[in-house]
Amino acid sequence: MFDKVQKIINDSNLDIVVFLDPVHLLWFAGFSGSTGALLIGNSGAVLGVDFRYHEIAEDLKAKNIDVYCAPTGNLLKNTLDYFSDEKVKRVGYLSSRNSQSQKEMLEKNLNAELVAIDEQIDFIRSIKNKNEITGLTESAKLNADLFKHIREIVKPGVSERDLAAEIISYAVKNGASKMAFEPIVASGKNASRPHASFTDKILQPGEPLTLDLGVCLDGWASDMTRTWVVPGKKPTESLEKVFDIVKNAKKEAEAHLFAGVSGHDLDTSARDVISKFGYGDFFGHSLGHGIGREVHEQPRLAQNSKDVMLEGMAITIEPGIYIKDKYGVRIEDSYIIFQKKVINLGIDVFSDFF
Amino acid sequence: MFDKVQKIINDSNLDIVVFLDPVHLLWFAGFSGSTGALLIGNSGAVLGVDFRYHEIAEDLKAKNIDVYCAPTGNLLKNTLDYFSDEKVKRVGYLSSRNSQSQKEMLEKNLNAELVAIDEQIDFIRSIKNKNEITGLTESAKLNADLFKHIREIVKPGVSERDLAAEIISYAVKNGASKMAFEPIVASGKNASRPHASFTDKILQPGEPLTLDLGVCLDGWASDMTRTWVVPGKKPTESLEKVFDIVKNAKKEAEAHLFAGVSGHDLDTSARDVISKFGYGDFFGHSLGHGIGREVHEQPRLAQNSKDVMLEGMAITIEPGIYIKDKYGVRIEDSYIIFQKKVINLGIDVFSDFF
Repeated sequence: MFDKVQKIINDSNLDIVVFLDPVHLLWFAGFSGSTGALLIGNSGAVLGVDFRYHEIAEDLKAKNIDVYCAPTGNLLKNTLDYFSDEKVKRVGYLSSRNSQSQKEMLEKNLNAELVAIDEQIDFIRSIKNKNEITGLTESAKLNADLFKHIREIVKPGVSERDLAAEIISYAVKNGASKMAFEPIVASGKNASRPHASFTDKILQPGEPLTLDLGVCLDGWASDMTRTWVVPGKKPTESLEKVFDIVKNAKKEAEAHLFAGVSGHDLDTSARDVISKFGYGDFFGHSLGHGIGREVHEQPRLAQNSKDVMLEGMAITIEPGIYIKDKYGVRIEDSYIIFQKKVINLGIDVFSDFF
Repeated sequence: MFDKVQKIINDSNLDIVVFLDPVHLLWFAGFSGSTGALLIGNSGAVLGVDFRYHEIAEDLKAKNIDVYCAPTGNLLKNTLDYFSDEKVKRVGYLSSRNSQSQKEMLEKNLNAELVAIDEQIDFIRSIKNKNEITGLTESAKLNADLFKHIREIVKPGVSERDLAAEIISYAVKNGASKMAFEPIVASGKNASRPHASFTDKILQPGEPLTLDLGVCLDGWASDMTRTWVVPGKKPTESLEKVFDIVKNAKKEAEAHLFAGVSGHDLDTSARDVISKFGYGDFFGHSLGHGIGREVHEQPRLAQNSKDVMLEGMAITIEPGIYIKDKYGVRIEDSYIIFQKKVINLGIDVFSDFF
């Protein structure tokens, strides 16, 4: 990662880059605390932390990042004084990750010109290296195991809340530090809400159950969605029809997925299938997104996206149809894009309806 | 809440206030989605949401907040156009919650003067009304039940990870939507890290186990810490001594806790006890913090705090001593401050060492 950040430093004529947000402390330094100041220059990097994280941060020392355990006071200023004797003039920072008050604090403490480097950082984060692909693959594998485990206990009489508790418990027991996002466990008409929370509702035979789950394993996110029928009754014909349309939309997008295709064209490929059957207005979100340290990253697969899929990108494809107060269906997998092939990270999880 | 925000509007001569961050959408509107634009003026309030949250947001309509389901596009601009025909000139916003790029977006779309109102909002959030106190009390009650449940299964041979899985599962099964923060389950020398994550370490008899847990119930956070001895062996004398010092430091702070005392003086009252026994350098964090929709809010109980405890505030007291690579002890409860009394929300949870 050093070389990529140093390229930004050189291209933008910066003295140093500053990261203050947890996502980028984790991404660059593997540091999982909530507070820290990471400074990167051409000569190296230092992570400044306070008392609460001294021991945790010192474990990182092997990874070519100097760790500075700052005294109580101004963490950024102390870390900067420790890092560099020279005056810094141009400093790269993240305008979308730092609040307005943090920006003012940076200006006051650094007394330097701040340069927003969000787009460059988002882009280099979107291209995963070998270790990052391994991390994402392991996270997706645990997530797939989670779906297989949960499938065994989906039956009438169980509540959405029971499933949610078992989901989180299984994930943590089997190595996750947490869920990558709050699990969506939505049955019956709750499934018509793309971002439903779980409720105390009891599962009924023949109704749809949407599970949108991801774990956080060693700091890597996963993301997968299945809509299954609760056993005990055949689903209605209209529900089955909607499921088939969503499944075909996903297949169509997968057929277009290769290095070089645009996020716009991928979105269109799936959206056209859904629109052809008259459900265009019921697919109100975009087709997918990048995934990595965060569950939503660059690139975006959407009508207004200008992103192009490149080798090393990790993305999701997740078409859906939502009929208000009736039901909903979404199917989602995650993929790694290589130069000559694409790998589906969730291929072995049951993806039919019932 | 309306009257309090409208007082800020009038005092600061604002036309409207804009909230874009999830915490304040939850605090003011009870909306639990990730994205929305909440505009509040003297004539009322509107919450603008996108397709994903239409149904969820419409459930809020009873609560005197107009819900606007915006078409795809610029959510803020569309919501503003819907809310007001008149030109807004001065707009209150949160400089610590909105990123620099969000601020630029606000400036571009509103074409108005932006006024940071962070301090005023933080202050009115720190004074809880009756409903908010009920919410915090219920959350603390579930958290206390969680501690009692976990105490039954703490024994040698169980891993920190096993406990973490059971903690989250119990909390969700019994009504929590999630943990208020990642559970700290730190045994033996891991307990020397104030913000340790749980590991695969197996509990050993006689070693300390620090549990710092909080649940999120109906959007209200709780926060409690206990350090217990793993059964099967007496703790060492030095560990027992440290426990007694922390316990006495907490008692001393509790004796000083009433409406009118300063956060600085509370911190000093506990810190003096710890320093008197020579452990001052091993209590490296501040004494406590406010709690509400978030686990860390105003006021602050710290050496550099200028906050004063007032009726309706909800706060934590959590002294600790951490001996690097050896062990650590922290004890924490949460309290509601009334005019003539203080209520400890975790009083009935076992708080002795063994």
